[in-house]
Amino acid sequence: MHRPAENVSAIADSIFESYRLERRIGNTDGSILPSKEVIGSVCESILELLFPGVYGEEPITSPHLRMVTGHRVRGVVTRLTIEAWKAFQITENRSSAAEIEQAVLRSMKKVPEVREVLETDIEAAYRGDPAAAGHDEVIVAYPFLEAVAIQRVAHLFYRENLPVVPRIMTEWAHSRTGIDISPGTEIGSHFFIDHGTGVVIGETAKIGSNVKLYQGVALIARSLSAGQALHGQKRHPTIEDNVTVYSGSSIMGGDTVVGAGSTIGANVFLTHSVPPRSVVYFDKGKLQIRSKDNRPGGVIEDWAI
Amino acid sequence: MHRPAENVSAIADSIFESYRLERRIGNTDGSILPSKEVIGSVCESILELLFPGVYGEEPITSPHLRMVTGHRVRGVVTRLTIEAWKAFQITENRSSAAEIEQAVLRSMKKVPEVREVLETDIEAAYRGDPAAAGHDEVIVAYPFLEAVAIQRVAHLFYRENLPVVPRIMTEWAHSRTGIDISPGTEIGSHFFIDHGTGVVIGETAKIGSNVKLYQGVALIARSLSAGQALHGQKRHPTIEDNVTVYSGSSIMGGDTVVGAGSTIGANVFLTHSVPPRSVVYFDKGKLQIRSKDNRPGGVIEDWAI
Amino acid sequence: MHRPAENVSAIADSIFESYRLERRIGNTDGSILPSKEVIGSVCESILELLFPGVYGEEPITSPHLRMVTGHRVRGVVTRLTIEAWKAFQITENRSSAAEIEQAVLRSMKKVPEVREVLETDIEAAYRGDPAAAGHDEVIVAYPFLEAVAIQRVAHLFYRENLPVVPRIMTEWAHSRTGIDISPGTEIGSHFFIDHGTGVVIGETAKIGSNVKLYQGVALIARSLSAGQALHGQKRHPTIEDNVTVYSGSSIMGGDTVVGAGSTIGANVFLTHSVPPRSVVYFDKGKLQIRSKDNRPGGVIEDWAI
Repeated sequence: MHRPAENVSAIADSIFESYRLERRIGNTDGSILPSKEVIGSVCESILELLFPGVYGEEPITSPHLRMVTGHRVRGVVTRLTIEAWKAFQITENRSSAAEIEQAVLRSMKKVPEVREVLETDIEAAYRGDPAAAGHDEVIVAYPFLEAVAIQRVAHLFYRENLPVVPRIMTEWAHSRTGIDISPGTEIGSHFFIDHGTGVVIGETAKIGSNVKLYQGVALIARSLSAGQALHGQKRHPTIEDNVTVYSGSSIMGGDTVVGAGSTIGANVFLTHSVPPRSVVYFDKGKLQIRSKDNRPGGVIEDWAI
Repeated sequence: MHRPAENVSAIADSIFESYRLERRIGNTDGSILPSKEVIGSVCESILELLFPGVYGEEPITSPHLRMVTGHRVRGVVTRLTIEAWKAFQITENRSSAAEIEQAVLRSMKKVPEVREVLETDIEAAYRGDPAAAGHDEVIVAYPFLEAVAIQRVAHLFYRENLPVVPRIMTEWAHSRTGIDISPGTEIGSHFFIDHGTGVVIGETAKIGSNVKLYQGVALIARSLSAGQALHGQKRHPTIEDNVTVYSGSSIMGGDTVVGAGSTIGANVFLTHSVPPRSVVYFDKGKLQIRSKDNRPGGVIEDWAI
Repeated sequence: MHRPAENVSAIADSIFESYRLERRIGNTDGSILPSKEVIGSVCESILELLFPGVYGEEPITSPHLRMVTGHRVRGVVTRLTIEAWKAFQITENRSSAAEIEQAVLRSMKKVPEVREVLETDIEAAYRGDPAAAGHDEVIVAYPFLEAVAIQRVAHLFYRENLPVVPRIMTEWAHSRTGIDISPGTEIGSHFFIDHGTGVVIGETAKIGSNVKLYQGVALIARSLSAGQALHGQKRHPTIEDNVTVYSGSSIMGGDTVVGAGSTIGANVFLTHSVPPRSVVYFDKGKLQIRSKDNRPGGVIEDWAI
């Protein structure tokens, strides 16, 4: 069968024409969306501000560090103000560039407080993980710290009601760490996530102090079929102080409270509150073990369900 | 114990000599493998073509956008033709550069159609997630969209029988999003994956319209011990229209069909078909909850299995 | 409510002052931590050394490859010696730069042996996955190979007792692949991880030959509340030869041994040893399936737990 040769220009034209159609991803109203690349570079600057000498090329001992710090703050404020301004254009609210800049500045003013809380997270990781050789290893090697550091700063912008940008920040960290924490989540001190890949923490979850999570833990919403009708309501659980949740467990629902001092075993699916100091686990009576060598007829299956 | 000093040149020579051995990763037949870096840059260009103004530096309002679009298409076609040509050298099939270029062009001609389907995916995400403040937030912040956009384009190349390159494309997206969709998977409209990390969707899976998956869902093959003997057969399940699968569930087998309108609960392991409008979940009678304070002898374990 | 304007310089000063406080992340003792960026670039060079022509821009057929190989080895040795030297400054042990360089050189001398073992990993992936069209596809497209390649080299440095740096290397691969293998893990030949996202393998795990893991498998430690007291003890399981572990299963404890030839089903939580040739799975009697159309009163819930 003969097929006619395709032509690059014609293809480019048809793609270009599709941008002009009245559709969402054509941006035909001329709105300019925030740039993922720029916000990613802002996240890198924020890590440099939080952990100088670890991120970025300027050693902590540099005589230029004060000047470099000023440069970094200025760069974050300028870029975030522009990106947040773009984000406001695609929402129903409006805010002037001057107001946005003040909101960014108020948030950045709290960076020293964020550094104090991150100290407690590092301490919790060191205490909780026998593989950690020291606090510094936590800083340079543990992915949860990157995810939590970005979330704690993004949460400042979230509380200033800057739209979309905080979420792009936490998704930047999600992409690097496999840890997906909403910028809306409230998190206490001494927070530690071990390994981390697959962790999901929803927008309205509340997490107390000294909480430890393992990989694959999800703090999620119930009744998701209601969709947009639930926007703004508390949909995700509350985890009180001194709780440990082992790998792969999901805790669901906005009125679910895991009481202080509780331990949730692995692969638990918990949809209601438990009192303080609970231990929650699956009955282990159901694990089946048989030998491949005792099959009737001598047939050995590698795996059959 | 005295150890003799090692020498950089001697080490380099021994590594270099190992390249000349008759082994796979020595490439001693002179074959040149496709470059992951180049295909990664092609994926970036494809995202720029699909979502101009969001990816890439050219604003959607730019008077240069038509020219830039042509430049992007040309770049994708040139680079993919070269990489696919390399890929053909390592398979048993052969194809001329001219034939490969035509296959790439035929695929790229369908990019406007892919954009139409992606509109429906964005709509599904907005409808399904109360955390989404608007359609634009989905475009700039939701990782599933990046994974699905790359998969939908890679699937065009897969259907043109271009070897290896489509898989490198979806693995590029997997690395960024934690979502692993084979380029072979057929996916209907209005597809949404929430959170996404840990999702695995196999080569011969078929997914209807209005399907919603959560993080950690796997659509996988049975009897994997048969290995290469199964190459080309339908090994992965079929998910009909309007199905939701909650987090961590695995659905297995090429003849497994999840009927339209069904809901699969979290952490289910399903290995057979279910009729339309089924609800599938684990019996919840087995969750054990005890207090840490009521242990005989007063001993409190933090965790014991 | 009037809020006073914030000032970039004042904010930068307060952040800078926070670096001078007596805290861990202030690095006030002048210690310089290893750079994640530099160690990431070392990992890229190591992939180029292991898989020339696939990673890096120099084709395998290049007449310059011998020279390029020498340059790459020299670059790795120089950068790793410096970063490991920094890492020693933050531990209780000390080592001279000359001793560190010799340890790095001794490790690099074993790169050809690592290449030989990686050949067996590629062979195992090709044999085990019907989706693989050939060995070369495994090399260019399978994320597990990147994670295992970096782990096998990092393990050489780990055995030379270089602190922190090996862990930063495996976390670099974790970020790219979602596969988290400790540099301490001992791994036999013909190792294959399919899909891989969410896999966690602890520091003292031992893995035999011909072991195959799926996404989300965790080889983890028991009694983690003991924390630092367990540093250095065997805390993670032993997996003997020819074992397959399906997706989402966790195997726990330093004295847990999975006997040779065993198969562990999906989503199993195993906390004790099983003899050779065991098949371990959950009783499947507990899956509940009901129709949405047979609800008393005619009410149809989409999902209710």
